Amino acid sequence: MQFSAEAPSHSTAHRQTETVQPGDDICGHYRALRQQSEVFCAPLHTDDFNLQAMPETSPPKWHLAHTTWFFETFVLKPFCPHYQVYNTYFESLFNSYYTGVGTAAFPRAQRGLLSRPTTTEVFQYRSAIDQQILALLRHDHPQREQILQRITLGLQHEQQHQELLLTDIKYGFSINPMTPIYCNRNDRTAVRGFPLRSTAKLNWTEFNEGMCDIGAAASGGFYFDNEAPRHRVFLHSYALANRLISNGEYLAFIEDDGYQRPELWLADGWQQAQQHKWQAPLYWRRQGHAWQLFTLHGEVPLNLSEPVCHVSYYEADAFARWSGVRLPTELEWENAAASQPVEGRFVDDGILHPRAACGEKQFLQQLYGDVWEWTASAYAPYPGYEAPAGAIGEYNGKFMCNQMVLRGGSCASARSHLRASYRNFFYPGDRWQFAGIRLARSLH
Amino acid sequence: MQFSAEAPSHSTAHRQTETVQPGDDICGHYRALRQQSEVFCAPLHTDDFNLQAMPETSPPKWHLAHTTWFFETFVLKPFCPHYQVYNTYFESLFNSYYTGVGTAAFPRAQRGLLSRPTTTEVFQYRSAIDQQILALLRHDHPQREQILQRITLGLQHEQQHQELLLTDIKYGFSINPMTPIYCNRNDRTAVRGFPLRSTAKLNWTEFNEGMCDIGAAASGGFYFDNEAPRHRVFLHSYALANRLISNGEYLAFIEDDGYQRPELWLADGWQQAQQHKWQAPLYWRRQGHAWQLFTLHGEVPLNLSEPVCHVSYYEADAFARWSGVRLPTELEWENAAASQPVEGRFVDDGILHPRAACGEKQFLQQLYGDVWEWTASAYAPYPGYEAPAGAIGEYNGKFMCNQMVLRGGSCASARSHLRASYRNFFYPGDRWQFAGIRLARSLH
Amino acid sequence: MQFSAEAPSHSTAHRQTETVQPGDDICGHYRALRQQSEVFCAPLHTDDFNLQAMPETSPPKWHLAHTTWFFETFVLKPFCPHYQVYNTYFESLFNSYYTGVGTAAFPRAQRGLLSRPTTTEVFQYRSAIDQQILALLRHDHPQREQILQRITLGLQHEQQHQELLLTDIKYGFSINPMTPIYCNRNDRTAVRGFPLRSTAKLNWTEFNEGMCDIGAAASGGFYFDNEAPRHRVFLHSYALANRLISNGEYLAFIEDDGYQRPELWLADGWQQAQQHKWQAPLYWRRQGHAWQLFTLHGEVPLNLSEPVCHVSYYEADAFARWSGVRLPTELEWENAAASQPVEGRFVDDGILHPRAACGEKQFLQQLYGDVWEWTASAYAPYPGYEAPAGAIGEYNGKFMCNQMVLRGGSCASARSHLRASYRNFFYPGDRWQFAGIRLARSLH
Amino acid sequence: MQFSAEAPSHSTAHRQTETVQPGDDICGHYRALRQQSEVFCAPLHTDDFNLQAMPETSPPKWHLAHTTWFFETFVLKPFCPHYQVYNTYFESLFNSYYTGVGTAAFPRAQRGLLSRPTTTEVFQYRSAIDQQILALLRHDHPQREQILQRITLGLQHEQQHQELLLTDIKYGFSINPMTPIYCNRNDRTAVRGFPLRSTAKLNWTEFNEGMCDIGAAASGGFYFDNEAPRHRVFLHSYALANRLISNGEYLAFIEDDGYQRPELWLADGWQQAQQHKWQAPLYWRRQGHAWQLFTLHGEVPLNLSEPVCHVSYYEADAFARWSGVRLPTELEWENAAASQPVEGRFVDDGILHPRAACGEKQFLQQLYGDVWEWTASAYAPYPGYEAPAGAIGEYNGKFMCNQMVLRGGSCASARSHLRASYRNFFYPGDRWQFAGIRLARSLH
Repeated sequence: MQFSAEAPSHSTAHRQTETVQPGDDICGHYRALRQQSEVFCAPLHTDDFNLQAMPETSPPKWHLAHTTWFFETFVLKPFCPHYQVYNTYFESLFNSYYTGVGTAAFPRAQRGLLSRPTTTEVFQYRSAIDQQILALLRHDHPQREQILQRITLGLQHEQQHQELLLTDIKYGFSINPMTPIYCNRNDRTAVRGFPLRSTAKLNWTEFNEGMCDIGAAASGGFYFDNEAPRHRVFLHSYALANRLISNGEYLAFIEDDGYQRPELWLADGWQQAQQHKWQAPLYWRRQGHAWQLFTLHGEVPLNLSEPVCHVSYYEADAFARWSGVRLPTELEWENAAASQPVEGRFVDDGILHPRAACGEKQFLQQLYGDVWEWTASAYAPYPGYEAPAGAIGEYNGKFMCNQMVLRGGSCASARSHLRASYRNFFYPGDRWQFAGIRLARSLH
Repeated sequence: MQFSAEAPSHSTAHRQTETVQPGDDICGHYRALRQQSEVFCAPLHTDDFNLQAMPETSPPKWHLAHTTWFFETFVLKPFCPHYQVYNTYFESLFNSYYTGVGTAAFPRAQRGLLSRPTTTEVFQYRSAIDQQILALLRHDHPQREQILQRITLGLQHEQQHQELLLTDIKYGFSINPMTPIYCNRNDRTAVRGFPLRSTAKLNWTEFNEGMCDIGAAASGGFYFDNEAPRHRVFLHSYALANRLISNGEYLAFIEDDGYQRPELWLADGWQQAQQHKWQAPLYWRRQGHAWQLFTLHGEVPLNLSEPVCHVSYYEADAFARWSGVRLPTELEWENAAASQPVEGRFVDDGILHPRAACGEKQFLQQLYGDVWEWTASAYAPYPGYEAPAGAIGEYNGKFMCNQMVLRGGSCASARSHLRASYRNFFYPGDRWQFAGIRLARSLH
Repeated sequence: MQFSAEAPSHSTAHRQTETVQPGDDICGHYRALRQQSEVFCAPLHTDDFNLQAMPETSPPKWHLAHTTWFFETFVLKPFCPHYQVYNTYFESLFNSYYTGVGTAAFPRAQRGLLSRPTTTEVFQYRSAIDQQILALLRHDHPQREQILQRITLGLQHEQQHQELLLTDIKYGFSINPMTPIYCNRNDRTAVRGFPLRSTAKLNWTEFNEGMCDIGAAASGGFYFDNEAPRHRVFLHSYALANRLISNGEYLAFIEDDGYQRPELWLADGWQQAQQHKWQAPLYWRRQGHAWQLFTLHGEVPLNLSEPVCHVSYYEADAFARWSGVRLPTELEWENAAASQPVEGRFVDDGILHPRAACGEKQFLQQLYGDVWEWTASAYAPYPGYEAPAGAIGEYNGKFMCNQMVLRGGSCASARSHLRASYRNFFYPGDRWQFAGIRLARSLH
Repeated sequence: MQFSAEAPSHSTAHRQTETVQPGDDICGHYRALRQQSEVFCAPLHTDDFNLQAMPETSPPKWHLAHTTWFFETFVLKPFCPHYQVYNTYFESLFNSYYTGVGTAAFPRAQRGLLSRPTTTEVFQYRSAIDQQILALLRHDHPQREQILQRITLGLQHEQQHQELLLTDIKYGFSINPMTPIYCNRNDRTAVRGFPLRSTAKLNWTEFNEGMCDIGAAASGGFYFDNEAPRHRVFLHSYALANRLISNGEYLAFIEDDGYQRPELWLADGWQQAQQHKWQAPLYWRRQGHAWQLFTLHGEVPLNLSEPVCHVSYYEADAFARWSGVRLPTELEWENAAASQPVEGRFVDDGILHPRAACGEKQFLQQLYGDVWEWTASAYAPYPGYEAPAGAIGEYNGKFMCNQMVLRGGSCASARSHLRASYRNFFYPGDRWQFAGIRLARSLH
């Protein structure tokens, strides 16, 4: 991703640029990935760093500090004897929700009120912790294996916050009447605006009933605890749509009074839709008879062939019911995706916006990237799931209630962060993530 | 159940007593079950009929009217040509949540403000609709089969509301400082208070992994749409506790600071526990060093050997985590229960309170009756589930989000209403139902 | 007031009718006034006795009990040695807000949830306390003078609650879609509906500047502490409208977009009007192009010549601003009213609805009765005000903040309860009292 | 006031320093006063400029922009033909509450979410508007007199926001666990901490009853519309305490269970105190057995001889009742203050904190400065009050309900902004202003 040259002084003033070289060791990976968080902040002004437009989002400054806190708390404190805490206030201020670390977390909804420490001080905090982490990594240590595991977890954690950083900024900018632009599109399509392509035909890919293995294989590289243990399930025959649902298809739902017909909705969804007066996905803005879309590139005309995005689970479910079919379960999704390469449009591509499906591909496409796909599965532990011991065990397990699983990753996810077994989860009413719709149907 | 002789005038003044005889036809069943709702109201004073102590509960008068509305709306209106609506206001006032019936439902949280129609008028409404239903049943009708199906559904629906009537009254009385008594215990144990028995030993019953069939069999009598279709699942090996968790066991959790240790709780559960200052199950009342329990029989000393009751899913889950095991899934529960007879303590027994497990039984007991058992399963459609067409399809399907499945029935459920495939569902924070805990663990 | 003959059993079953005879002593006054509260409840069904449609209102049953509690607490307890409390629960349940009586008041917003004690039990409570009060009054007592003062205060208090009983019932019925009727109009005008008279011409009565005396004279019979001490004030010259503002005049304000023009409103009033979507006075209901009015007699066509009623202070103030004038201060009102007889339409007349001004009267009319008149005066202590010692001192003094003074009484006030110095007070947003508008203007 | 030299770049980068010279004309006054707002922001970091810790406060950036918007809206737009609006978004974003200016104000509670325009852009806005205002002032204009009036109003308005800027920053910093320091005390007393002096003896100054003139005299320089018209009132004899109530005296109230005794409180105050768990004035922090005080200089030990500060009207009133006396009316205050010079400790002194009374002075002291004094007077129009025509008339008049008048000014007010007739007003529950207590008592 290329950002404008006028990056504010924070990210450059307090640390030298790190370049990731091929063949880099763990230190290089660490530096590169940590720096990426700051690169994502480059288009921001200092004023933006404290912006928290709703309790579910966090200010950019907080994301930068919290990810650093994670390394300090789960690497430096346990593995560096005589480690001196950087700032005792930070132990609480930048704790997200861990109850097992000794200090209560600062209230989430008030993160945007933390004008201090300043953004500059947070960048200094990042720099100081990074130096100590890198020093730790450069030397022998009797627990090096565990340290590397924690480092890996911390980097995966940082990737998650990088995506949240983008979606939180997007939401924060969206409520500003001045329509701030996070970054201008610099590819050719952007110059001409989003092209209006006819939507690719929707096909169904069928899967036979049978036993299948679900979850991360212990041998296959990093995975989160919630992806384990790998286990057998029986699936009935089903079919998946070969691509995501487009804005044009969703517009047909709207124009067929989809938001006015309670019979299409889950009861809780209908209530939420009425309460918040939902009439379209988040970021759709009616302008006379046309629709505009708020994006990280500013407001643009709605492109009907792009995947619909920023819908809640309730809207995805209502759309599926209106379509006469349903959403896939996470098991059906993973069974289909397991055989596919992790290809698609990711944050690495720097577009930060989902793009239209390819008309020529008959088979499954857009499984990874573009938008997360709401599944019909409530977020729950797999059979035999065990949360890790200690505070680190709070990472995933304690959220296994009231949330729905999303699969596949989005245009704001890092390619290296995703895999078939990856389980994302949000509340069914959440709309500020890049989340969209893939349909499924039962064949039995 | 035997109630005191001083039943208020409503239930006797406006309808003659119906006695159910062996070999009774559908009319007899209809009359008997409908009358049962009024029998449950016999201990109430007119003042109690409008009591709605929280939005989730409904006033007794409303239950009586709504169940009648159900028959009027789904039997008389569609199947009686030229049917004249009893009272056009009732179409909205006593509609619970059906959006497909033409009139918007009166706001749920304000049902207790409907001082009119009066209780007497609601009893008259019941009587008038009953007469027309019975007339319809006594004559030939080209759609008799469908009518009988709807009558059956209406009676099942009424049984559900009979249980809610009891739990709603219990909650409504509980907030009154005067501790009203719904009915005195008239069995011998009651005279001497709840006996303190030592809790029966807890054993584990094991189940091997394998495929099993879940859901109601099409051939097996009435079932709700959410129990279908019957389908195959693969279960890993597991074990179920042979009985319910007792008050004594739950007290150990409390005394081990269970309500003060966030690491034992789901995040949403912890938040709710803090917000509402939960320190024990609903209806437990500390009195100095002892605990009292509010029941439908008034306040009694806590009996440690009785099943713990009126806990939320969050508390059940936290207790299981503290115990080092977990709650069963609804599939595991049904697999175990399918082979067991529907035996236990039900509303038919007239005790209206769960009772201690039997010490001699090694194998599964208390599966049915006493208290509903929270399962670890989010309420979701079975593979291939289809909601019925029309407004009747709103009965179950639209609630399949954010709620957890409970299994087995309670001391406030009718024996004839229950079966292995029966799925009850409530929000994880709900506590006013007779809901308790059975533990499970994985064996793989 | 004449009510229908079918009074429910409560008020007749448990006490014999008392007839007030000329020359009656204090016992007769006590009995008659206490009985009046029950007469006001005669048209109610038992279902209505627990109705509390918003926190600001109280259920009829609670009014009946609280006024009784007042006599028990402030007469029987302090003046009857060895008095046995009737029911210890009632000490808290029916305490409105007195903090100095030893028991905390039951939460106001939950009064409607007190299904027990039953209505019958509350009537028994009234009867039992009345007997003891009457016994106390019939015998000598060393503190007889103080007792008589307390009895008088208790009866004044009961008259206030009689008015609230009517306004609370009116509000409670208004939210019921079935439009319950409290009582049918039985006078001739009612038979023909409210006649549409042309509104009487509005004149101004002028008052010269100068010193005047404000507040109750110590020699003039009962008054509340907040009416004292009588004191001197200087008033600038002013004029008062000779009659109340009519519905027709208020309709002109509505039709001139009064509810859409923030420049006419106090800032807090505008906010409240927006929040609650006020478009007309409470109880006005648009029906096509016409307006209907909800009254204690049911819904009737709006009579344009009747005084506008059920407006908040904010609406009264906005109307006055729109009219180019202002509301009177309470001092200006009292100065004008002090010389006028307490004449008008009161609850004694049994109409329970304000009536049109008389066209022939040029001078001040409708000062008393019909509707309370919002003044521009915040409720505050008079210079030298002292609240009585003890709990009785909480009666008025602690409410002297955030409320506005109303003067004159309404069609729901007892004639014997009113006088020129009487100060009523409500929050500026309250609309459920019979409150209307008299205009004033400055002459200097 | 002297601030540290490290002022952030905003205020210096975009405008040259203006120095006020003796004999300066209106341009000099304008420049100096406008610059003062930026000087008050000098100790802030950019992160602080968006801080809005509760809806009642505004971010510093917003104050800077809104005061500029005031000049643009009420001077440049009406008096400069062909004026081009600086930024059409700003017309709404920085409108506080004026409904008559054509654009709806951005929601007050969300001002802290306006990360754009950036702080730098707001300083540019200030500079651009200032240039045009100064240009307007330097040239002849047919409406010069009106322009000068508006300029004066705008500067008075800016002084009000300068005080709010300080109190809002104080509140915003107070919720930060890191206890940010706005500025260090640089006088000698500060070096040694606040000295603990014995509190000066409290005397009473008496005033005889009689007529007096209240309100601003038309001939006496600038005043707000709410100070007019000057009018006669009759005052009963009264006495005023010669100084403010000290922390030590207030501590005695706390230690006498002042916060636990409802009989001392107004009903609304008691409710608010319970809801927010008030146990002491805002910014008092218990530390073991001692009290610390949060100030703009950081946290310091509570100085018992300083005036108590940051109390609500409810607390001031409860303290007065506990003391057996009362608060003064605004009329009593003004009558006493009218003869006194405007002397005291103001923002001009740069202390930003109230200071102890002087022990030697028997007569009235601390009337001006130190802390605003809550009066017992609800904010209401004076007899004959007329709001100016147009949007400018919204400045004061529409707030004349539900608020209480404060008199005298504080250590955060400018000396040149104050006078005997000045009426400040806040809601009785507001605590974040420098507001304290002067007692009064009636002598008749």
